[in-house]
Amino acid sequence: MTNQDGAAPRDLTRADFAVQWPVTTRWSDNDMFGHLNNAVYYELFDSAINGWLIESAHVDEVTSGVIGVVAESGCTYFRELAFPEPLTVGVRATRVGRTSVTFQLGIFGDPQNPAVAAVGRWVQVYVDRDTRRPVPVPDAIRSALTAGFAC
Amino acid sequence: MTNQDGAAPRDLTRADFAVQWPVTTRWSDNDMFGHLNNAVYYELFDSAINGWLIESAHVDEVTSGVIGVVAESGCTYFRELAFPEPLTVGVRATRVGRTSVTFQLGIFGDPQNPAVAAVGRWVQVYVDRDTRRPVPVPDAIRSALTAGFAC
Amino acid sequence: MTNQDGAAPRDLTRADFAVQWPVTTRWSDNDMFGHLNNAVYYELFDSAINGWLIESAHVDEVTSGVIGVVAESGCTYFRELAFPEPLTVGVRATRVGRTSVTFQLGIFGDPQNPAVAAVGRWVQVYVDRDTRRPVPVPDAIRSALTAGFAC
Amino acid sequence: MTNQDGAAPRDLTRADFAVQWPVTTRWSDNDMFGHLNNAVYYELFDSAINGWLIESAHVDEVTSGVIGVVAESGCTYFRELAFPEPLTVGVRATRVGRTSVTFQLGIFGDPQNPAVAAVGRWVQVYVDRDTRRPVPVPDAIRSALTAGFAC
Repeated sequence: MTNQDGAAPRDLTRADFAVQWPVTTRWSDNDMFGHLNNAVYYELFDSAINGWLIESAHVDEVTSGVIGVVAESGCTYFRELAFPEPLTVGVRATRVGRTSVTFQLGIFGDPQNPAVAAVGRWVQVYVDRDTRRPVPVPDAIRSALTAGFAC
Repeated sequence: MTNQDGAAPRDLTRADFAVQWPVTTRWSDNDMFGHLNNAVYYELFDSAINGWLIESAHVDEVTSGVIGVVAESGCTYFRELAFPEPLTVGVRATRVGRTSVTFQLGIFGDPQNPAVAAVGRWVQVYVDRDTRRPVPVPDAIRSALTAGFAC
Repeated sequence: MTNQDGAAPRDLTRADFAVQWPVTTRWSDNDMFGHLNNAVYYELFDSAINGWLIESAHVDEVTSGVIGVVAESGCTYFRELAFPEPLTVGVRATRVGRTSVTFQLGIFGDPQNPAVAAVGRWVQVYVDRDTRRPVPVPDAIRSALTAGFAC
Repeated sequence: MTNQDGAAPRDLTRADFAVQWPVTTRWSDNDMFGHLNNAVYYELFDSAINGWLIESAHVDEVTSGVIGVVAESGCTYFRELAFPEPLTVGVRATRVGRTSVTFQLGIFGDPQNPAVAAVGRWVQVYVDRDTRRPVPVPDAIRSALTAGFAC
């Protein structure tokens, strides 16, 4: 990962993200200004992180006794995107702690355009489904993160 | 189109729809029951109809003086769908009137499964952007519908 | 209920609905045409029906062994609505069957305006959470519907 | 505003926010974990900021030549919220610059509970609708912010 030395978010490219998750946009994503509403970016981040974890770590979000909840999120928007453009979400883990994982995310549009449109930050904390108390990051997820993000 | 003679909605297959529009699902589409919320199907119908029209009839929804608004919509749900499964929306026009178009839509999941998961009905009326009064279906859209839905 | 004799949907007023459920609109509800996206109406129907059932029948949607899933839905749109206008959803049960309930819904805007903006139809089927097989409408819900919709 | 000296976000109360904007939650806001999805908080922030500006500064988002777009957003989540609980969004401007405004937001649940459930940060940049180039914060908005947030 070329970003480990702290490249500015605006300069990130697809190559900085180990996982590339394709997503489609929706008519209703565009707001009155004709561009993707800012909250939609978080729906896409969530879908890429969890879609990749379900596929790679075989997490079953409906029955799992341990769930990943969001403790912090943030996004910086560099340029507008709009339906019907298909997008790609880049995902990488920047920190895997004892009970939490910090992800960095990038949203990319047209494959011909290497520039990142938005960069997100996401802290997921693992908790017991019933008590909602923090628990260690499950082994399957820890392994997937390690394997998936190896470069 | 094999459905012109009135096949029951539950028996529709991909082959009944001239247009096939791929869409991805989102984490937030799943509700407390672990399946796609019923309102999401309408977001997908809207995206397939308008995405196809933008691509085929070169409609610019931000600036066009004529816009297509929904007068009626409906959906019958046959089986559950859930994130992260990617879906396909089948679209066909069942009636092209003077100022309105009626679409039939089908939602399909796994390509190996020919059965339709839900079938929608959608009446789009074309109106003047400023006066909101009905106007004739624009020629570009009428042509796209005729060409796109020929079998 | 004055509508039992079959008044046209367009002529329904607040007085035709036994339950009045207030909802707020959101910036992101407005689409590129500056009005509430058609799918949002279904989110509001869902919120009014389930909000009222949670309050009246003390349903716990997270743990209940019986859940209500949507088998059919539909909406006819009579006039546009837009954020930031607060709305009211009128709800009434038009049929309480053995395993399903049919609701009629009306969306109203400004309290000074008696005209209904949109009318919905909604068929909710009760199923076992695990097997997803239809089961009788739970007694608490049946009682709430009977009591709540008495006029 | 008692927060000007830099109280920790977790310690903010309703009294720290000059504007209190009521919002209702929706059935579809709850995700598979039975709580408000993290992206929904941003929809509520957006609705409170723009709802208040439309009401106070008489901004017409559909026709205005100057629009406010989001350059950065972020949220820290302190406790879970869930439909059908009605919420209040607290809003205050922490910085009014030449072309941008920074808002701090707080989400509150049950009026009996003074603790903030989530705290957001939001940077809105004013741009020309056509060129998308930054322009000075419109006078009507600057006045509303000054008047509305005076304590």
